[in-house]
Amino acid sequence: MPSLRELGELGIIRILENSFGKSKSALVGFRDDVSAFALSDGKVAVLKTDMLVGSTDVPPGMTMRQVGWKAVVANVSDLAAKGVRPLAGLVSLGLPSQMTEREIRDLATGLRESSDAYGFHLIGGDTNESEDLSVSIALFAIANRKQLVLRRGAEPGDLVAVTGDFGSTAAGLLAVLRMKKKPKQLPRPLYDAVFNPRAQLQLGLRLMASGAVTSSIDSSDGLAWSLHELASSSRVGFRIDRLPISLAARQFAERHELDAQKLALYGGEEYQLILTVRRGKLRPAMRAARGRLNFIGEVTSKSHGIRLRRDNSLVQIPRKGWEHFRQ
Amino acid sequence: MPSLRELGELGIIRILENSFGKSKSALVGFRDDVSAFALSDGKVAVLKTDMLVGSTDVPPGMTMRQVGWKAVVANVSDLAAKGVRPLAGLVSLGLPSQMTEREIRDLATGLRESSDAYGFHLIGGDTNESEDLSVSIALFAIANRKQLVLRRGAEPGDLVAVTGDFGSTAAGLLAVLRMKKKPKQLPRPLYDAVFNPRAQLQLGLRLMASGAVTSSIDSSDGLAWSLHELASSSRVGFRIDRLPISLAARQFAERHELDAQKLALYGGEEYQLILTVRRGKLRPAMRAARGRLNFIGEVTSKSHGIRLRRDNSLVQIPRKGWEHFRQ
Repeated sequence: MPSLRELGELGIIRILENSFGKSKSALVGFRDDVSAFALSDGKVAVLKTDMLVGSTDVPPGMTMRQVGWKAVVANVSDLAAKGVRPLAGLVSLGLPSQMTEREIRDLATGLRESSDAYGFHLIGGDTNESEDLSVSIALFAIANRKQLVLRRGAEPGDLVAVTGDFGSTAAGLLAVLRMKKKPKQLPRPLYDAVFNPRAQLQLGLRLMASGAVTSSIDSSDGLAWSLHELASSSRVGFRIDRLPISLAARQFAERHELDAQKLALYGGEEYQLILTVRRGKLRPAMRAARGRLNFIGEVTSKSHGIRLRRDNSLVQIPRKGWEHFRQ
Repeated sequence: MPSLRELGELGIIRILENSFGKSKSALVGFRDDVSAFALSDGKVAVLKTDMLVGSTDVPPGMTMRQVGWKAVVANVSDLAAKGVRPLAGLVSLGLPSQMTEREIRDLATGLRESSDAYGFHLIGGDTNESEDLSVSIALFAIANRKQLVLRRGAEPGDLVAVTGDFGSTAAGLLAVLRMKKKPKQLPRPLYDAVFNPRAQLQLGLRLMASGAVTSSIDSSDGLAWSLHELASSSRVGFRIDRLPISLAARQFAERHELDAQKLALYGGEEYQLILTVRRGKLRPAMRAARGRLNFIGEVTSKSHGIRLRRDNSLVQIPRKGWEHFRQ
């Protein structure tokens, strides 16, 4: 009987999915970025929950204010990938008994600052004592059923695009976790990537409203993993012609003799959007993105898998990523 | 600077409430059983989240299937107290790495059985590795704004009623926690109270739809604590003429020379409803309850506090209860 670590997050999600069964009113699969529930007159309720856990999601040196901020960002990022604006949220806290009042105030401040930044209120919650810190956010939104951009929908010939560069988060996490650097020793872009991440909400709203996007996912499980998820949900393959590696990740890789491509591909907790754009709708997509869309490849048939152009050949990108139970 | 244990759950909720501020669209206070958010045309979105934590909410001998069941019940009970039917739910899991696949399957089974029992689907979720087990449920519902029964609303002269008897859960928890009894050694009513709790959803839906209920709360924080919460939210006092103590709690108290009144008053995780009924609407309330409403006292003015009739005098019931951080 495998333990959870062997089973992996995906294995657990499959167990839940099989056990819970499919609801007639559930409009998106268990494995999309959000859940959605049919209301009347073409509207859907969009629901999202994501839990931040102290022992696995909080790098050394992160303040409670940053923890609160990050917990909200992780949830908002999934809504951004669907083009949905959060209307309200709840927060469920599991707090270790040795936390101080100051720390809980800082946590509350971070939660408020981030919900303010993304335009919604946290209107309720629950607190408990717990041995491990946990901050579970639930977001609620309403959308038009037709507007919701799902993971499935990409078709061969569409273009693959991302909203930013990758690798800074992985580099920053390596620096604080493995190299034991203090946060303030990090170059600013790496520090911000790890400690002050941002969700691409406004950009996601504009892009998904453009009508040009055929499928979309947030990149929080890592670029390679998310590309595989998006492709398998849409039953297509991707050919990636150029990897979007951040300058800071390149510099970090050079200084420490690391592979910058790996930093960009196999990181995680990097809250960009990965999406596919219908070729005939490039112009509305680019107008919506206001210069913040980077086209990196093309949708191919499923049989080709996820390939990366390297020199003059194409190599398979393995399905590896940031998966909590397989660290 | 006080630690969380000194601060208490109420202190933490106050910090969150003050930090988050009041949303114009939030229709109920941070401290009611649920949160609600105004939609168009007199409808409200009702949101609820409650987290079950392994180290504090799972008594020895509870199976993972029972853990899943209880996590859902705790959330449904709060909706029952407002007269709201859950439409869909999400589950966020924090799972210790040593859990087996069998245990996660059992947990999923319990989650499914309870959501089935209360008529909704779990349509999404999130899993994480965590040092302490946490099962955070978020429920979503839609209600008519006018139908929502809140904690505030009781008026002097209303009658105080409960949907069941109290004390079995406290007795059962004492038996397994302090007396180290095995679950199967417990008398059936105590076993069921602790390991197979039920939410009063159908009864709550009928009662709150009757138009007779002026205020309502679920009793999961204990009878005494919940009476205080209900009274202070409504700015009234209560005179309790007879305590609704379960037969099993009386027998347990007698056998172990304990105070049965204390078991009934200062327990917790007992998912009954406590409510106030307009005196002119007794008949519709009783019809809705189909014999399952026990009138225990009367709403008085705030200055009288929460008093219990004992022999020929009235004694104050202190605001004590099941509060995680003050165990």
